[in-house]
Parts: sequence; C-alpha cells; structure tokens
Amino acid sequence: MRVAFQGELGAFSQQAIRQFLGHAAQPVPCERFDQAFAALAQSKADAAAIPIENTLHGSIHENYDLLLQHDFVITAETNVRVVHNLIAPPGLGFGQVRRAFSKDVALNQCRDFFARHPKIRPEVFYDTAGSVKMVMEKRPPGGAAVASELAAKIYGARILKREIEDDRQNYTRFFLLERSGARPRTPKGSGKKPWKTSLVFSTRNVPGALFRALAALALRDLNLAKVESRPLRGKPWEYLFYLDFMGRPDQENVGHALSHLRELADFLRILGTYRAA
Amino acid sequence: MRVAFQGELGAFSQQAIRQFLGHAAQPVPCERFDQAFAALAQSKADAAAIPIENTLHGSIHENYDLLLQHDFVITAETNVRVVHNLIAPPGLGFGQVRRAFSKDVALNQCRDFFARHPKIRPEVFYDTAGSVKMVMEKRPPGGAAVASELAAKIYGARILKREIEDDRQNYTRFFLLERSGARPRTPKGSGKKPWKTSLVFSTRNVPGALFRALAALALRDLNLAKVESRPLRGKPWEYLFYLDFMGRPDQENVGHALSHLRELADFLRILGTYRAA
Repeated sequence: MRVAFQGELGAFSQQAIRQFLGHAAQPVPCERFDQAFAALAQSKADAAAIPIENTLHGSIHENYDLLLQHDFVITAETNVRVVHNLIAPPGLGFGQVRRAFSKDVALNQCRDFFARHPKIRPEVFYDTAGSVKMVMEKRPPGGAAVASELAAKIYGARILKREIEDDRQNYTRFFLLERSGARPRTPKGSGKKPWKTSLVFSTRNVPGALFRALAALALRDLNLAKVESRPLRGKPWEYLFYLDFMGRPDQENVGHALSHLRELADFLRILGTYRAA
Repeated sequence: MRVAFQGELGAFSQQAIRQFLGHAAQPVPCERFDQAFAALAQSKADAAAIPIENTLHGSIHENYDLLLQHDFVITAETNVRVVHNLIAPPGLGFGQVRRAFSKDVALNQCRDFFARHPKIRPEVFYDTAGSVKMVMEKRPPGGAAVASELAAKIYGARILKREIEDDRQNYTRFFLLERSGARPRTPKGSGKKPWKTSLVFSTRNVPGALFRALAALALRDLNLAKVESRPLRGKPWEYLFYLDFMGRPDQENVGHALSHLRELADFLRILGTYRAA
C-alpha cells in the first residue's frame, strides 16, 4: 500500500503512517500538501496521511480546504507526539556542535534548549527530516539537525540529545485519507475505541445558527469532540464549521441528528467515520 | 505610546499598530511573542499588538496561552490583509533576481509566483521584514526579499512585483492588548462598529457541555462571532473554549448570559470588550 505524505522521508507524517498501517506501507514523499492530495486523486498513491491539527498551533486550515476540494474519506485518525532531537553525523560529538538546522517552527519549539546552549546557533532549513539528510550528505562544520528519531534512523545519523522541545504537550493529529467508498481501518490497538464522525457545514450568520446546529446533536445525546468556526473571507457573513462527534451515521440517533443538521445548513459534507485515536 | 510587537520593523504587526493608533505610536520590536507580552508586563511598552488568528492558518494558540498567563485586556481588534511583494535593493532589476528570501510561511504563500518564475529560487530566512533589511545591508548577488510594502519603505528598498501571493483572502486578525483596567479604544473608522466580547472558558467533557454553554448565549439572542474548542493535553477530558460574541458586559442580556456561563464553566475569563473590526 502506497501512502502519500508531505515532507521528506523521516517526517512526523511517516511516523503517522506507521501508526496507521505498520511497517508494510510504502511512504510516498511529496513536496507540498496539495501534491499529496493529487497523488491520491491520480492513483499514484492508495492513501494519504495528512496532519489536521496540532495542540500548540491549532487546525491546519489548508488541509481542511484540500479535503473540501477532493472527494476522499477519512478512514482512520492517529495522534503523533512531536519529539525533537538533536541529531548529528557519526563522529560529531555534542561539544563540537555549533549549528542546528531545522524548520523554523521546530527551532522555535526548542528555545529553552538553545538558551541553555548558546554555543549552538539555530539555523532555518526548509524541512525537519530534510535537515538530517543534508547534514549527513554535506557535513557542514559543526552542523547538526533538529528532527524526529525516525529521521535519525533513516539517514544513519546519531541522536546527541533526546526530547529537546520546550513543551511535552505537543501532539499532531493526522487523518488517513482514501478514495471515496473506502471502509474505515482499525489501526493496531484501536479495535475497541469508540467511533467518531467528522463533518463540515456552512450556515448564514444569523443569531443562534451554530447553537441550533449543536442542538441537533445535543438533543440526540451525542457528544461533541471538536467544534471550530471559520469565517469565509470571500463571503463576509457566512461561516464554515468543523464538527467532530462521537458516533457513526448508521446509529438511529446519529441519522436523526444528521437530517436535522441538513435542514439548518446551506452545505454539509460528512468527511468520514473512523475509530477515535 | 510604545507598542510591543513580534518581528522586525516593517512586520505585518507594525501595519496593525498603524491601523490601531495611526503613525504616532512608537513600535517596539521584540524577537518572540512571549517577549512582547513581557515588555507590556514590565512597562517597557504601553500596549502590545498581537496576531491571534489567520484566515489560512487558523488560531495562534501560543498567543491565546500567553493571554491566559497575563492579566491584560483586549482594547481593540483589526484585520491586516497579508500582501506579499517581491522587494529588492535599488539597482537590481526584476530580470536579475535569482533568489528571494523570506519566512517559509510567506514563501509557501507565493508558490504560483515561483512556479511561473523558475529562475528565482525561494530561500528561507528567519523573518519577512528582516529579509528586506538583510538584502539591503548585505546585497547578496541577485538577492531579493518577499515582504510587506511597509518593509520596503522602511529600509529604502524597491518593490519589483506587487501582490505575488497565491490567495488574496489572506487576513490576520490582531488584538491590541493593554494592562488591566485600560478602556477600549476606537481605531479610526471603527466608531460605529458594534461591540464584541472575547472570553475563554473550560468545561469537563460531559455530553452537551458546549451546547449548554452556547445556550446561555442563544437564550439571550446573542450572536456568536467565533467558537473554537481546544483539548487540554495535560488534562485529557477537559477542554478550553474560545468564544467571541457581539455585545458588551454592561448590557442586561449579556450580564445574564455571563452569570449563566459561570454556572456551567470550571473556569471563565473575559479577555476584553472592543469595537468589532
């Protein structure tokens, strides 16, 4: 099974693929998110592993937009803990490190480490795993990288310091996407997890519109796992809402809630039903 | 009036300061967001202009967290349209540009431009406005920057191409923060805009908890402008909710709604009441 993802081999998305499908899946690296979606649409991949939100940075709206542009279904979700490590080519000791390459987001998440080690200068690079690949190939003097354990393994580099991130509560939630009609998957360990359904709908900004929409779920005792409103910039008084709730559409109460929601929404799309991570 | 912001002079945050306070305010650049908050706390600044959400990237949770760590009030909001321009030192023509420096987020928002102009290679730099400063000081061969019009003006650089971003619907919403007790400000042109109140509350994940909280507003005919749930990672079954609604606490119906919300919430804090942008 070929699984498209954004980034270089060793990216956190590849860790997500392992959590979804084990070691047998073949990762298909793509430079950009839209290219990962296109790979799935054009059958160059059988699935795509896409980050959808992060505990520190919030929802990744670009990927919600791409979900709406394509006709895929979510077949699984997983949470990947974002752990940053200082990684160097074999032979370079911690005392010799002078520069640490990574994405600026990753470097910013390790500020305390750089404050404690002022001899190591953070340097922005376009990709986390790609920075490991680069220091292994080019061996810049005193050059290390900040990336995942998986990236160190893939490129044969050494971890000099583990878990150098400031905040241990840094998780990214990923969706596994497949072409329309695919059935939910059960990643290892998630067989007894409850079902969750994700949907997107839009409604006019009339007072209480979201309240009425949530009432459609609450009146059927359905538990909300996520709600987020997003103004539609081109259409000043319309909003998109992302909702996740516990349940699956073939339950009678979920069916009633969805019919009720359709009455209220200008647009509604169910993105998928899957085992909660 | 001294206003702290994150970034170099010419950052989009400085544009926000002009929208809030005109040209008289003195911008106080800070390297990081927590330093901009600290500047206000330590009276090194009289206010801080802080981005809180972006139409493409969503809420900036880091800044919501910093808001909760400090006792400031929101005294105004404004939306800044994010316009990227190709900017070069005087004397460098468009045909001579070979490299364009900027933050990776900014470069990623100009993909179509780089696809149409393959001779110009995007190169990651730590700051948008800072990249203009750098090309002006160091004049790297064929080196241009991607940044705001304001950055071009401040550093005496020339705009070679305007509005090179892919998506024109790219806006960032900013809050003006001041120390506790400050009164709402009325940025130019916002005098007749309706009042908006922002609050944060947390509640246990019992079915329908958010529904009941929104009912407290809907039952008083209050219109919601934003809602967002955020799982509290350290406390697996608790959630933070960010709510913005139209109205101010001295209205009778808002007062009732807030008392009702306090009954339901484990924690509730009003972040401020201000004119809607």
